Amino acid sequence: MKWTLKSLAQALEAELVGDPDCEIDRVATLHNAGSGSLSFLANSKYRKYLKSTGASAVLLTNKDAADFSGNALVVTEPYVAYARAAKLLYPAQAVTPGQHPSAVVENSAVIDETAYIGPQAYIGDGVRIAAGVYIGPGCVIGHDVQIGQHTRLVARVTLCERVAVGSRVTIHPGVVIGADGFGIALDSDHWIKVPQVGSVHIGDDVDIGANTTIDRGAIDDTIIHDGVKLDNQIQIGHNVIIGEHTVIAGCVGISGSTQIGRYCAIGGGTGIAGHIEIVDNVQLTGMSMVTKSISEAGSYSSGIPVEPTREWHKNVIRYRQMEKLFKQVKTLTEKQSD
Amino acid sequence: MKWTLKSLAQALEAELVGDPDCEIDRVATLHNAGSGSLSFLANSKYRKYLKSTGASAVLLTNKDAADFSGNALVVTEPYVAYARAAKLLYPAQAVTPGQHPSAVVENSAVIDETAYIGPQAYIGDGVRIAAGVYIGPGCVIGHDVQIGQHTRLVARVTLCERVAVGSRVTIHPGVVIGADGFGIALDSDHWIKVPQVGSVHIGDDVDIGANTTIDRGAIDDTIIHDGVKLDNQIQIGHNVIIGEHTVIAGCVGISGSTQIGRYCAIGGGTGIAGHIEIVDNVQLTGMSMVTKSISEAGSYSSGIPVEPTREWHKNVIRYRQMEKLFKQVKTLTEKQSD
Amino acid sequence: MKWTLKSLAQALEAELVGDPDCEIDRVATLHNAGSGSLSFLANSKYRKYLKSTGASAVLLTNKDAADFSGNALVVTEPYVAYARAAKLLYPAQAVTPGQHPSAVVENSAVIDETAYIGPQAYIGDGVRIAAGVYIGPGCVIGHDVQIGQHTRLVARVTLCERVAVGSRVTIHPGVVIGADGFGIALDSDHWIKVPQVGSVHIGDDVDIGANTTIDRGAIDDTIIHDGVKLDNQIQIGHNVIIGEHTVIAGCVGISGSTQIGRYCAIGGGTGIAGHIEIVDNVQLTGMSMVTKSISEAGSYSSGIPVEPTREWHKNVIRYRQMEKLFKQVKTLTEKQSD
Repeated sequence: MKWTLKSLAQALEAELVGDPDCEIDRVATLHNAGSGSLSFLANSKYRKYLKSTGASAVLLTNKDAADFSGNALVVTEPYVAYARAAKLLYPAQAVTPGQHPSAVVENSAVIDETAYIGPQAYIGDGVRIAAGVYIGPGCVIGHDVQIGQHTRLVARVTLCERVAVGSRVTIHPGVVIGADGFGIALDSDHWIKVPQVGSVHIGDDVDIGANTTIDRGAIDDTIIHDGVKLDNQIQIGHNVIIGEHTVIAGCVGISGSTQIGRYCAIGGGTGIAGHIEIVDNVQLTGMSMVTKSISEAGSYSSGIPVEPTREWHKNVIRYRQMEKLFKQVKTLTEKQSD
Repeated sequence: MKWTLKSLAQALEAELVGDPDCEIDRVATLHNAGSGSLSFLANSKYRKYLKSTGASAVLLTNKDAADFSGNALVVTEPYVAYARAAKLLYPAQAVTPGQHPSAVVENSAVIDETAYIGPQAYIGDGVRIAAGVYIGPGCVIGHDVQIGQHTRLVARVTLCERVAVGSRVTIHPGVVIGADGFGIALDSDHWIKVPQVGSVHIGDDVDIGANTTIDRGAIDDTIIHDGVKLDNQIQIGHNVIIGEHTVIAGCVGISGSTQIGRYCAIGGGTGIAGHIEIVDNVQLTGMSMVTKSISEAGSYSSGIPVEPTREWHKNVIRYRQMEKLFKQVKTLTEKQSD
Repeated sequence: MKWTLKSLAQALEAELVGDPDCEIDRVATLHNAGSGSLSFLANSKYRKYLKSTGASAVLLTNKDAADFSGNALVVTEPYVAYARAAKLLYPAQAVTPGQHPSAVVENSAVIDETAYIGPQAYIGDGVRIAAGVYIGPGCVIGHDVQIGQHTRLVARVTLCERVAVGSRVTIHPGVVIGADGFGIALDSDHWIKVPQVGSVHIGDDVDIGANTTIDRGAIDDTIIHDGVKLDNQIQIGHNVIIGEHTVIAGCVGISGSTQIGRYCAIGGGTGIAGHIEIVDNVQLTGMSMVTKSISEAGSYSSGIPVEPTREWHKNVIRYRQMEKLFKQVKTLTEKQSD
């Protein structure tokens, strides 16, 4: 896809500095850019590459543009503008309607004629698939699932029975939505399963990363609200509710019945206990351990970063002796006060 | 499935208080219950909903029933009774015998005529599948695998060659059993693979959650004993042995050759080192870090829960200065004793 | 596969002590060994089993062989020798060329005639598959993927479009390579996706464990260099670069744009922040939390192992009071100096 810098500037509502006829056909990082590529500067760490970049044009703030002699598209938020530019330069492939002959589609499924069902996909009884949906190779869609317009299941996604997915959702390979929640009860000497009769409701404009799992509700539904973005290998327990526009990085685990607010940002590897509530606008840094509700917006952290193993050994020992130390200091203080 | 309260009371061996002819056709949480639904009170947190619940009947302890004016089924353990009631109201669908025409079944596989093989499943050479087994869409069963009676592979499960699975086991989508363990040896300047020639043995009545992985043994087998319940995204290394009726929450990782006892309960996100032993009846709270054997039953924990990021920063610095503090206190004590 | 001890000794360049005609047809652990089996002693923990082992021969160091009365193969590194012996006794099955009739292969794919495409695999447009490659059941290979000689995709592996995989690579079930990285930008009140237009490059002799995910680069590629060994359920973010012969245990998460050196060893459950660099020859013990670059080789650790829950509670409280304690000690010191 080729654009002139002039047309790109118009589409991005950017101020053009330089040659309007310059042709752009791809994006590149500042230090790997060649002729024809558009780059951007959003992280000051990479400013050092600006002078020598081979990019044909760069997305810059007003301030950074002042020091730059090449072609520039001046914007207030270069990263957002870059995201939009990349969408223009690499437009999503249109969905070709139809069903691959190797797909298995039950008769009672209702599939919009503009949707695509890929090779070796399985579509169960009573499934409803809306316009423009893409079901990639090897997906398994259980009975009575609903999928909204222009949603894309990349490949090998599993949606269990009765799961409802909104519009413009992207689901990556290996994702499992609607497997049974972990509901068990100890019946004297053995565990019995608690039937998981709820479902999962995924809102609009949600992205779900590879191998993430979202369990069905025990009684009521598990709910992922509009605009939520989930990275890879996240585990979301039964009856969790995640508010609009919350983003969650990889390897996070959220236990059952926990509610998370809107516009939260949860760092990778975080673990969140069950049956708690986290309000809107909470940030959790990576590997946080959350055992209680969080009732005030703001940034929270836990964990002690690595140190050389020798020192770590010493500090762990000292940690376990803290009680003793506190007592010693108490004694010292009392004696001194005598 | 419709039940009268009277018939439910009989099936659950519960004491009926109220209208025996009341009809129940579903379960509900206390606060979302409508007419026709059975609810339960097991967590005191939800007692506040009891007064206003719309449930047609509620499973209660003797004590809670005393304060309740609606229909009640009085039992000693409402949650266990609820699990049983839910099973009656939502009976598991019977397995329809047969093989989907799109399944690929090798000639030497021996499949009981009451078993079901779903769309696009693959069944390898020498596989033996017992009565009432359900193999869902997209499962891959390697050669010489054995599967016991009434076991259910929901969809897209992979069992590698020679794995043995017991009876009444449920395995959720994305599970991989019998992939190679992580056995490597450093041969001067590069790693060589150690062939993993053992297998995996799964007992009876085991549940395995979505995207969990259980590696085959290096020489002897990896063993999951009867009644073990595994949540999602758990990683179990080669030659791990897990005792009867142990339950493990999501995102737990267990390194190779570790042995875990019976009736243990392991919280989500816990990591357990290799080549150690954990005795029966050990509880580990969420995100525990286990580096050594545990030889006494009881509850163990680790990790420091989140605090506001500003305070976290300070505490991490203080943590690294503990050694200095201990020395200061030592000096102070010595001086004071002078 | 049957070998005489003499021929095994020659193949392994081991010194034979005992009966050269002794027949070996399998491997076994020292304590489970029977007649016909070869065992080894590499971990001193298991020396106690040496006296009573039923193995027909044992791989031993010179020192251990001195105390052993049975047949021995004396080597400098018993574990490496064991790995080689196991490969001889359990040779990898040769790949039978051909395509299963249930596989779907696009016309423009170029597949070497010595490669195998398994049941229900899907091979996209423009894919290039080299000699001796094995594509197991249910794999999905996106368009324009390249796979080098003798690489093995066990089953249900997903390679997204344009991913390049080297030679002699093994990829286990559930692995997803080339799903979109987690690139989003906040456009006033909602997140927009940043198109991920890079790819993934996997070198030669790489092993990738079950359900591991490796995201495609945002602009440039994600790169896994030659000889890297990855365990199960690892998450590797976009634009990560991992150096030659680095090994990573299960459940590790590596955030985007981080670079890891050569010959590193990363323990299970470790979390590594984005945009940092770790030099060659770094060891991280299990559950390490890495938030900053590591510029010196050596062993690093973090995390405090479990203690009984009662003591853990006390220590967490004490940890949060450290600031107070430091102040108290400061006051004491000042007073004492008066």
